[in-house]
Amino acid sequence: MTELVWQHLPADDRGLAYGDGCFETLRLTPGAAPLWSRHRARLLEGAGRLGIPFSADEADAALTAALSQAQDAEAGVLKLILTRGSGGRGYAWPEPAAPRLIASLHPRPTRPQRDYTDGIQAGLCAQRLALQPAFAGLKHLNRLEQVMARREVQQAGWQEGLMCDTGGCPVEFTSMNLFAVVADELWTPAVTDCGVAGVARSLILEELAPQLGLPVQVTTRPLSQLDAATEVFACNSVAGILPVRKLAQWVWPVGEITRVIQGRLEQRFE
Amino acid sequence: MTELVWQHLPADDRGLAYGDGCFETLRLTPGAAPLWSRHRARLLEGAGRLGIPFSADEADAALTAALSQAQDAEAGVLKLILTRGSGGRGYAWPEPAAPRLIASLHPRPTRPQRDYTDGIQAGLCAQRLALQPAFAGLKHLNRLEQVMARREVQQAGWQEGLMCDTGGCPVEFTSMNLFAVVADELWTPAVTDCGVAGVARSLILEELAPQLGLPVQVTTRPLSQLDAATEVFACNSVAGILPVRKLAQWVWPVGEITRVIQGRLEQRFE
Repeated sequence: MTELVWQHLPADDRGLAYGDGCFETLRLTPGAAPLWSRHRARLLEGAGRLGIPFSADEADAALTAALSQAQDAEAGVLKLILTRGSGGRGYAWPEPAAPRLIASLHPRPTRPQRDYTDGIQAGLCAQRLALQPAFAGLKHLNRLEQVMARREVQQAGWQEGLMCDTGGCPVEFTSMNLFAVVADELWTPAVTDCGVAGVARSLILEELAPQLGLPVQVTTRPLSQLDAATEVFACNSVAGILPVRKLAQWVWPVGEITRVIQGRLEQRFE
Repeated sequence: MTELVWQHLPADDRGLAYGDGCFETLRLTPGAAPLWSRHRARLLEGAGRLGIPFSADEADAALTAALSQAQDAEAGVLKLILTRGSGGRGYAWPEPAAPRLIASLHPRPTRPQRDYTDGIQAGLCAQRLALQPAFAGLKHLNRLEQVMARREVQQAGWQEGLMCDTGGCPVEFTSMNLFAVVADELWTPAVTDCGVAGVARSLILEELAPQLGLPVQVTTRPLSQLDAATEVFACNSVAGILPVRKLAQWVWPVGEITRVIQGRLEQRFE
């Protein structure tokens, strides 16, 4: 049975020791988590691939507990960290594992409206993403690459930073997925060797793009692919969709497809 | 100033959230930590490369506090986890960072004496190590690869598991470094693209091998290099040196060079 904690946790938690777990960050509306089914699916997939016993019922119970707390706090964001729980001094899995779920509520970060209407300026991070198919796609707790890349974003004064894999192909922004319109098709990098399979990304790929009759390409492509892009945007489930106006040497207009998908995503939170 | 904690930590610690930190596991003797200068050097190098403000004086103060606790506990192992401390919901570094050091004392794991005299049997892990020069060599908290590899060791009933990088070259065991004697020279894989620069490993490379007049090669080599090995051993600072008798299709005798280095390492703890 998974233990739910809010404020403190034992120092022998394996999430701390090894990043042995995964997490979800959800945007809440009053009394609801609109994209919960996708967050839950990814959390369960992460637990499954890491071998952490955790069920959909346990996830639902945690969400219910969190939403009840959120009513008082007027919180806009829920973060759930699932770890393999406490366990020894060593890599070996505790048997049986007693997973721990660490919940926290946060205000939704405020962003200037112009980021949504006029777009953001991003840079290209020097920090690369290593190719590791075993954990690709998961929102696991081994995130030093993102921590170091985000530092570049802070220091350069960018609003986001694009990360390439160690082969030089673009994968994602530090905390958002990358989409581009190329030859009237929607393209986003594959996350089979590294990167996070974002919840907003999967919503776009599986629901919004098909609804709009928009063909989608999910493939690894070189950075030069951005030369051919006519629109570029960044997305995650908390921030929504941000047009990218500028990235390194590239400049794009805020495009029509970006605007339509942006509106469709926001409808999910109304 | 770094906060020292023992039992519990706040749930917003970045070590938990992102594996944003590094750790050391030290073998203690009564009232002392014989390889402290090497552990401290690696901890400071990790802090420096990750941009966590942490000084040698703070490290020494933590060791002193731990050794004073260890007197009562008759502990044989001290684990120190250094994190960037508490900080927000997002990859951005807190400014200024208030690092946290989580200390814990453990009994030294008991191992049958025959592991030291007759050697251990190891297997070859399917889990690979991704190539990530940014963090190679460090004992950072992003250790999912080792967690999953250790599971293979548990399930197969091996005593250790050798991990290769994603290019197929051997790097290290799940929690020990790899050494082999090849053509009367000592060889250990480079840890410039992945792997941990172990404290026992550095002691062997920088002190013990030179004292014995033994040439050392630190290079990435294919797995077939093991065909040419006449002795193989695994090492870390807690367990010491374990001869490897069997690994996948390979079988080796417990060799003379292994025995001599094993003895020299143990002298450090007498």
